[in-house]
Amino acid sequence: MTQGHGDDAYRYSDIRLNFSSNIFASADLSELKQHLCRSIHLVDNYPEPEARSLEAAIARRHGVDAECVLVTNGATDAIYLVAEWFASRREGGYVLPMPTTFSEYADASRLYGLAPAAAGAEGQAPAANRAAEGGALCWLCNPNNPTGTVSTPQELLHRARRYAYLVVDQSYEDYTLAPMLSHADAAASENIIQLHSLTKTYAVPGLRIGYIVAPPAVVAQLRSRLRPWAVNALAVEAGRWLMEHDTRAVADLPAYLAETARLRARLAALPGVAVGATATSFMLAHISHATAAELKDYLAVAHHILIRDASNFSGLTAHHFRVSTQTPAANDALVTAITDFIAQKTSVTTSATTSTTAV
Amino acid sequence: MTQGHGDDAYRYSDIRLNFSSNIFASADLSELKQHLCRSIHLVDNYPEPEARSLEAAIARRHGVDAECVLVTNGATDAIYLVAEWFASRREGGYVLPMPTTFSEYADASRLYGLAPAAAGAEGQAPAANRAAEGGALCWLCNPNNPTGTVSTPQELLHRARRYAYLVVDQSYEDYTLAPMLSHADAAASENIIQLHSLTKTYAVPGLRIGYIVAPPAVVAQLRSRLRPWAVNALAVEAGRWLMEHDTRAVADLPAYLAETARLRARLAALPGVAVGATATSFMLAHISHATAAELKDYLAVAHHILIRDASNFSGLTAHHFRVSTQTPAANDALVTAITDFIAQKTSVTTSATTSTTAV
Repeated sequence: MTQGHGDDAYRYSDIRLNFSSNIFASADLSELKQHLCRSIHLVDNYPEPEARSLEAAIARRHGVDAECVLVTNGATDAIYLVAEWFASRREGGYVLPMPTTFSEYADASRLYGLAPAAAGAEGQAPAANRAAEGGALCWLCNPNNPTGTVSTPQELLHRARRYAYLVVDQSYEDYTLAPMLSHADAAASENIIQLHSLTKTYAVPGLRIGYIVAPPAVVAQLRSRLRPWAVNALAVEAGRWLMEHDTRAVADLPAYLAETARLRARLAALPGVAVGATATSFMLAHISHATAAELKDYLAVAHHILIRDASNFSGLTAHHFRVSTQTPAANDALVTAITDFIAQKTSVTTSATTSTTAV
Repeated sequence: MTQGHGDDAYRYSDIRLNFSSNIFASADLSELKQHLCRSIHLVDNYPEPEARSLEAAIARRHGVDAECVLVTNGATDAIYLVAEWFASRREGGYVLPMPTTFSEYADASRLYGLAPAAAGAEGQAPAANRAAEGGALCWLCNPNNPTGTVSTPQELLHRARRYAYLVVDQSYEDYTLAPMLSHADAAASENIIQLHSLTKTYAVPGLRIGYIVAPPAVVAQLRSRLRPWAVNALAVEAGRWLMEHDTRAVADLPAYLAETARLRARLAALPGVAVGATATSFMLAHISHATAAELKDYLAVAHHILIRDASNFSGLTAHHFRVSTQTPAANDALVTAITDFIAQKTSVTTSATTSTTAV
């Protein structure tokens, strides 16, 4: 699917506060940007056909063998690569234990002809389906997008034994204090394919850099299906610089998650708004006064604020939206703007701006 | 294939003159680079999931409908996308009319399980194979890499009638004065899939920007298989800027091709060196005194000059190499360096440097 995602800021003319992707939007990227401008001559030459130098840097930083690391054109490219590789083996279907999760797992699976191998939601697969499950590719987002829930490493290792391969998408691993599977856990596993997103950890979604950590034999098979020169030379250079300087988007994670709790409490206190529990910095919310699409358009046009209309996630409704924690001032502005929206929706006279379509 | 291509400058420590990719390496990219540095904030946000704004700019510039244009992560990504799409239809195999051509067509075809549908070389397919050919995907590079030969638009239109689809990779279209199929020809065709490379036209291989022009129905099918956010935000911005400013790598093409003729004549005059005819700015050469690998290592280590060892192209030998025309001074330096190499190889005492391996 290439439509209906978050961070569609490019569709609006003047977004000032962006809560729509699960990224801290006020990260200080100034040093990285200076480095990229100093390195702009890299556009003159082809990048490495495979980003081996970046793979080596990632492997060093995380204490795994470089043969366990595969750099991709963003974590989404990794999802499609894994689905395409698994489909080429003609072994089994795919399983989504979380009924509501990132849509690309199902989209990529279907694109390459994989069929759902089990009923879906956790624990609901009838015993008769277990055999089919055993040969399947299981996709898990941890922390899960958009719900913010997490599985423990023990649960993941246990789950891996039930499937041919378990994909654990850890794109949001640096936005939670919950224990995660380590890089070494995936590298030493038999069948865990772990996805990582430099986009999220370092707040550089424009660059497209992700990577896979998996056992060497799996990485070798995936590598044989890589498209050459898939990662832009500036993205490779940014990745190498980030592995050295580690200028993470969120410098003080405990403080950021405390601010998340404050934002969640303020949103949940609004009339007609319910907010789910979260172990990370984004949260799924439900508004009863209007659709998420109406709320999104109002916020974009009247307040230059962008949120994620979450209605197109499987299992959700037209009233679900997702926000990710930003600065305290930005979070307060969001609460004030939603308060205004609810006041307008619940008053007798409705402001004309609520039906204005974004340009 | 992700190894064995040209422009492997990243493998050497100090390349000063690069003849190894089919790109004019002395293009003035200063304005584009300034623009990219001014636009470096684009790394903060996701690019468009599909590069629609760039597709619109390309369509406007070339007078075709935007529904006929699909931007990809470099022309190589387009090759893999076309092969994967065609294989998903389970209709037929693939055909390579040129026995020696860019290796990615066969690599991509095989990756997705397509089988060769005909004997291969031009006019050699026995009559019995024609039926198989009719359902096949035909790949043609025009001008052809690495030979520099061209087909006329009439030949291409005639050829298109013989196959299910004809891919015409026009990556080098702006490095020849020979008539090419226009964007409008491909858009109005029934089954021509034309590939274009901003990398080549504007000498920006580090950025990864290519695009497909094809009939709307074909583009729609290919688009449904695109991986989201495949083109980096800086690459999209560069593409838009280039469509507006058109700062081509080669400002004076007739002069550049005259310089190509001069370089070719000088190389062909060297003892033991043969050079093929070319309609573009690169040429395929053969050296009898040594392997291309030896020549390449000598030039890289002793002269900081990079050439393309062409021995891994199908149908060529260990003695084939490819060079692309650079500035007159650089071309003279290349001829001098190869002259030195030949002198050493043909003298009784061989210099130790010729066997030094590049680092």
